[in-house]
Amino acid sequence: MYKIEMIEGGVCAAEGFYADGVSAGLKPGGAKDVAFIYSDTLCEIASVFTTNKMTAAPIRHFWRYGKVQSNCILINAKNANAMTGDAGIDDIDEVLEVLTSRFEQIHNPIMSSTGVIGVRLPKETIKVGIRKFHLRVKNSQAAAAAIMTTDRFAKQIALRVTLEDGGVFHIGAIAKGAGMINPAMATMLCFITTDAQCYSDAMQEILNDVVTRTFNAISVDGDTSTNDTVLLLSNQKSGCYDAAAFQEALEQVMLHLAKAMTRDGEGASKLVTFDISGARNDAEAQIAAKALSNSLLMKTALFGEDPNWGRVASTIGASGIACDEKCLRIAFDDVCVYDKGTVFFDKLMEERAVEVMRRSEFTIACDLGLGAGSFRAYGCDLGYEYVKINADYRT
Amino acid sequence: MYKIEMIEGGVCAAEGFYADGVSAGLKPGGAKDVAFIYSDTLCEIASVFTTNKMTAAPIRHFWRYGKVQSNCILINAKNANAMTGDAGIDDIDEVLEVLTSRFEQIHNPIMSSTGVIGVRLPKETIKVGIRKFHLRVKNSQAAAAAIMTTDRFAKQIALRVTLEDGGVFHIGAIAKGAGMINPAMATMLCFITTDAQCYSDAMQEILNDVVTRTFNAISVDGDTSTNDTVLLLSNQKSGCYDAAAFQEALEQVMLHLAKAMTRDGEGASKLVTFDISGARNDAEAQIAAKALSNSLLMKTALFGEDPNWGRVASTIGASGIACDEKCLRIAFDDVCVYDKGTVFFDKLMEERAVEVMRRSEFTIACDLGLGAGSFRAYGCDLGYEYVKINADYRT
Repeated sequence: MYKIEMIEGGVCAAEGFYADGVSAGLKPGGAKDVAFIYSDTLCEIASVFTTNKMTAAPIRHFWRYGKVQSNCILINAKNANAMTGDAGIDDIDEVLEVLTSRFEQIHNPIMSSTGVIGVRLPKETIKVGIRKFHLRVKNSQAAAAAIMTTDRFAKQIALRVTLEDGGVFHIGAIAKGAGMINPAMATMLCFITTDAQCYSDAMQEILNDVVTRTFNAISVDGDTSTNDTVLLLSNQKSGCYDAAAFQEALEQVMLHLAKAMTRDGEGASKLVTFDISGARNDAEAQIAAKALSNSLLMKTALFGEDPNWGRVASTIGASGIACDEKCLRIAFDDVCVYDKGTVFFDKLMEERAVEVMRRSEFTIACDLGLGAGSFRAYGCDLGYEYVKINADYRT
Repeated sequence: MYKIEMIEGGVCAAEGFYADGVSAGLKPGGAKDVAFIYSDTLCEIASVFTTNKMTAAPIRHFWRYGKVQSNCILINAKNANAMTGDAGIDDIDEVLEVLTSRFEQIHNPIMSSTGVIGVRLPKETIKVGIRKFHLRVKNSQAAAAAIMTTDRFAKQIALRVTLEDGGVFHIGAIAKGAGMINPAMATMLCFITTDAQCYSDAMQEILNDVVTRTFNAISVDGDTSTNDTVLLLSNQKSGCYDAAAFQEALEQVMLHLAKAMTRDGEGASKLVTFDISGARNDAEAQIAAKALSNSLLMKTALFGEDPNWGRVASTIGASGIACDEKCLRIAFDDVCVYDKGTVFFDKLMEERAVEVMRRSEFTIACDLGLGAGSFRAYGCDLGYEYVKINADYRT
């Protein structure tokens, strides 16, 4: 067996990893806006990127150079470098050239960006940031702060994994994304570092699996960002590895950050788990769970703390999967409001359901009663603040 | 050739059709809440219903009795009779029995409902309404008002079609739906009457075709209502028919009502046409157009009058269809902001785009530059009022 413990240090917890965030002048008021993550030895890489066809320049740059190993990620906020054509890729080359000229120990650096779409990268300002870098700094918090856009709080986590034989490795991460309720502008970025002795192919397989139940399970409104990125770097410095322990720790890291993003959803005040069971299969459960977490009707009902279970049923019905009102059960935490045709919704039950909805975290559980398929999705409410934030993000 | 003119009379414009709305006590303050549409001879029927699997009782009742001909539709607001199981169907039988007992000239009546989900039909109240009916009334406006829920205005239209040989027929309709931005609660209902000499099979074929470009082209947020219904009744009284003229007139009727619903979207202030061209095929154009009209990001940008063309590009990119930033062109009415990699978005262009967005109606046109596929979808903005209306609809 193995033991997993939460520790301090974020993306710098793993041996040999360094990170910092500086103020280059992209954000007003001297806020940090450019960050780096650096390993003093080359790293193996696994990655997951957006499925958006208007893929941003940083991702196309990564693909163009087919990066296999790297020891540095450069990240900027405020500009997504998306819809900038080939010039956007040239801009990255120019910026990374400045980085590698200044620090000859950096090899094959990767760039990642988040912010406004359709504006050329402010290269000179980012270069100002690069000139402020000191590679031997372990300030994960500063890096996490620098990559924020509309985020209300910085997001990081680190875990120490102790194996049965006494071997120890670490996984740490920083992320940004003010709720996937708005990924097309708030881009979800996550950078994970580990000193576990694992290599690209194995890491990629595990990452693909874990991302389904974490970042791909949080509320998306159908607008996948041009820039969404998950990068996992391993420098093998611990000399230790156990696939099961690594997978479990990685899932804890990613689920923690995914939930943090949802909780930080623009204007959001609640984290709601949509727990679907009894579907014909997992794929159909996933469709229903995501339909609920993405539904504008559900989101406004959550905001209004209105236990409108009819909307839950209707949203599942509209999702296209197999379902039948005669087999369905709907509960808000432990308060069952509908069970196979019987409605438990007198004044008392309504009050109890409203009480559940007042909680900052609760679960809407739907048993479809048809099979063994299940999936959990995570969402948040949508209120006036969301409209305010998004009505004029650009201006 | 033929001539199509707009006339008064709504659903009563066609010969032999009658309609009225009365106050039964479902809505507070004596507002009209139960309506009928009646033809003094039997009608052929064509219909389109929701694809929601949690199909409401009125639609399952219609299917159960396989209605081929009818001469009356009974409609109530405030209660959807959805998620009410077999009891919901029995309730309809009981209510319709009262209707046919009172009026022996009514055959195979159809019931349609809209309102809250999961509450048994208030039969006794609806019976009060039925007792107030007088069949020989032609008050389309009252019927249109009675079927409203969150609608801000009643929706009706009527057209007179004059054929080359001097023959004349009529098509009229009433509809409700405060924007398909919220169909799971605001259910879209449309009842169309005609005295054209047309029969079920031909009508059904034309209706299926027209609904794609009208009611299925307005902004849906993925939540298809449990009750959505389009019913087309023809009593052949004019003795006239021409398929092309009928199709064109039907499309004018349905597009007019679809746009009226979008304009009446809860809290909406703008009607926006998303005009996609240059897609590989019509199906992909439809996917992109609907993605734009349903996008929460687009809707809030419309509300904020923010010409955030990056969101347009990103939303198309995320929709899954073939697209390429090097071939794309985006314009707000006549203001082109992006053309095949060139961004026209200095201060002046931004001001011109904002001017367009201040209009109550405008078009966002996207040429994908890849083929001949095209589709037009219609949407509206989403502001604070939408959140307010939907945060506590039940209460």
